[in-house]
Amino acid sequence: MVDSWLNKVNWTQDGLVPVVVQEAGGGKVLMFAWMNREALKRTVSSGEAVYWSRSRKKLWRKGEESGHVQKVLEVRLDCDADAILLKVEQAGGIACHTGRESCFFRKLENGRWVETEPVVKDPQAIYGKK
Amino acid sequence: MVDSWLNKVNWTQDGLVPVVVQEAGGGKVLMFAWMNREALKRTVSSGEAVYWSRSRKKLWRKGEESGHVQKVLEVRLDCDADAILLKVEQAGGIACHTGRESCFFRKLENGRWVETEPVVKDPQAIYGKK
Repeated sequence: MVDSWLNKVNWTQDGLVPVVVQEAGGGKVLMFAWMNREALKRTVSSGEAVYWSRSRKKLWRKGEESGHVQKVLEVRLDCDADAILLKVEQAGGIACHTGRESCFFRKLENGRWVETEPVVKDPQAIYGKK
Repeated sequence: MVDSWLNKVNWTQDGLVPVVVQEAGGGKVLMFAWMNREALKRTVSSGEAVYWSRSRKKLWRKGEESGHVQKVLEVRLDCDADAILLKVEQAGGIACHTGRESCFFRKLENGRWVETEPVVKDPQAIYGKK
């Protein structure tokens, strides 16, 4: 009963929902990710974004390695209940693992994808050499 | 060769890519949808958003019934090349089939999804009685 809001979400057959992540202040779209039920539950209870990593097949608290956590200010659901929008405050001003503010840093120009956003911080400085 | 930019997209096994749609002016996230290769190609060549309807299994030119077409100002690709961001001008100021500006009109508040955006125009007036 207490989690009945989770049942309103139209989860995929894999138990996931796509998530759009937007910076609450400037409105920039920062990234796109997926959540399962547990990720959404933890996001709401902790107030910080937790996603489901499809490649690693595990929960992933955003910023757990980089420190670039996302404080969640709003959680929204779309008309078909099959997509979530998070409005967040992005710690460090960097959402992308490439060290950029946003993951959407390539823009289509005359049939080519052109990088339009600078690297704010070198990924090696964020994650350490591996 | 002329469409090599389409090959940079990491299409799903079903040949689709998730698309986030943002109003270019105010920055509001309007909707979330899917495209296949043909939809993205037509979007870029026509300058108006064309999606793939997974329920109807056909191409869907946004606004073909409602008139609420989306003029595409920017097409962006994310770091993993598996999500697209469109920046658009939304005709009529209505993206949602419910007659609202944005599809993300429900906000989570104390364990409940609360409708936070008004219906700008009655859907019956948009689509006609059926």
